[in-house]
Amino acid sequence: MQKTGKMQTDNCLQLPKYAIIVAGGKGLRMGGEIPKQFRPISGHPVLMHTLEAFYRYDPEIRIILVLPEEHQNYWNDLCLQYRFTLKHRVVTGGPTRFHSVKNGLDTLPDNGLVAVHDGVRPLVSEKVIDNAFEEAKRSGAVIPVIEVTDSLRELTSDGKSKSVPRNLYRSVQTPQVFKTALLKEAYNQPFCDCFTDDASVVEATGKEVKLIKGNAENIKITTPKDLLLAEMLLSHV
Amino acid sequence: MQKTGKMQTDNCLQLPKYAIIVAGGKGLRMGGEIPKQFRPISGHPVLMHTLEAFYRYDPEIRIILVLPEEHQNYWNDLCLQYRFTLKHRVVTGGPTRFHSVKNGLDTLPDNGLVAVHDGVRPLVSEKVIDNAFEEAKRSGAVIPVIEVTDSLRELTSDGKSKSVPRNLYRSVQTPQVFKTALLKEAYNQPFCDCFTDDASVVEATGKEVKLIKGNAENIKITTPKDLLLAEMLLSHV
Repeated sequence: MQKTGKMQTDNCLQLPKYAIIVAGGKGLRMGGEIPKQFRPISGHPVLMHTLEAFYRYDPEIRIILVLPEEHQNYWNDLCLQYRFTLKHRVVTGGPTRFHSVKNGLDTLPDNGLVAVHDGVRPLVSEKVIDNAFEEAKRSGAVIPVIEVTDSLRELTSDGKSKSVPRNLYRSVQTPQVFKTALLKEAYNQPFCDCFTDDASVVEATGKEVKLIKGNAENIKITTPKDLLLAEMLLSHV
Repeated sequence: MQKTGKMQTDNCLQLPKYAIIVAGGKGLRMGGEIPKQFRPISGHPVLMHTLEAFYRYDPEIRIILVLPEEHQNYWNDLCLQYRFTLKHRVVTGGPTRFHSVKNGLDTLPDNGLVAVHDGVRPLVSEKVIDNAFEEAKRSGAVIPVIEVTDSLRELTSDGKSKSVPRNLYRSVQTPQVFKTALLKEAYNQPFCDCFTDDASVVEATGKEVKLIKGNAENIKITTPKDLLLAEMLLSHV
């Protein structure tokens, strides 16, 4: 048994690693605001920082960038403009995050490990990516979490609300890393509104997800405030 | 009945308003880091911005600043150094936030409305303070909340965890505003570890708490990252 365990570990070490970067976001309408993933911070669009974070972790990693069809020309133009040459494959997104991730997964072989990561989280640390892949080799399904800093309340079905102990809750980040075959199987389920992230898709198949410690700077850039903070963090890190 | 209701409203309009600003935080040890409430952002210590936010809302508001005894000389020196002359009364804090708020409350008359606010939340908007006081006139107990932006998980008693729907949760901010008599009565209860904020103290007496919309910028400055963000927000707001 001991020997089999060791062999499996060695096999896993050889497994190819993939990262599906999801950048659905809102449409690029004429006159509308440019989505956060394309906004420049510290001299480059957010999304380029995000891709670079994965390449810094492992130059051999294969990146699948999921973009809505209507953003793809814009992204190509940005790559030319910023001379961004990091290798990645663009896959067309779907109507929800679930469908976008599924489209990315459909292009992958069954062996290997895959990280699913939000395009608007450029500040993920190399250590968190590394810990997530290492743990996924062992347990198959890993997500990074951080403690909740504000007091928390739950809205109850009677239209009221109640205090809940925040120390029993965790904020969930990405990358969420899985054995590819396990994640593909989970994404074969029919879509459900209850899928809030990849972990919830996997858990719906009865599998367990392992929590590891995320990095607090790894914010999801969704508001102008977040963009300012990310700019500051990138220039101080 | 209609007339009584109107009279009550008019009476409430005359009620004095108080703000208890709680700045317990960690000790000021020799060689240790200066607590966040005393760190300068945009040219002034955090705590001065916080007091100013309440005076901007209403120059007649009476401010009670709760400080640990060992911070009071330091605060007085800062006030001289920064020529900070906004009127406020300093009250000595206790071993926990509960005891600190109680010490502040003990100095107030029973009539009126009282806001309890974290000293390290300088970015509360005038509109949120105003809405909280106005709603407290009607319902007696009000807290500002914002939506939760990250996916959320609950740690379960079996050592595992599960996804919870984040749209059913709210992050709780301050100021939490109450009719003074109601809050004083609540703080007459014995201390319990389950008190995470003033709302939870009030709810333990069986009273309900009304939620209003807070402002997302009203962050609690607890990490170096928060201090950077607050600096940026203050210079952009």
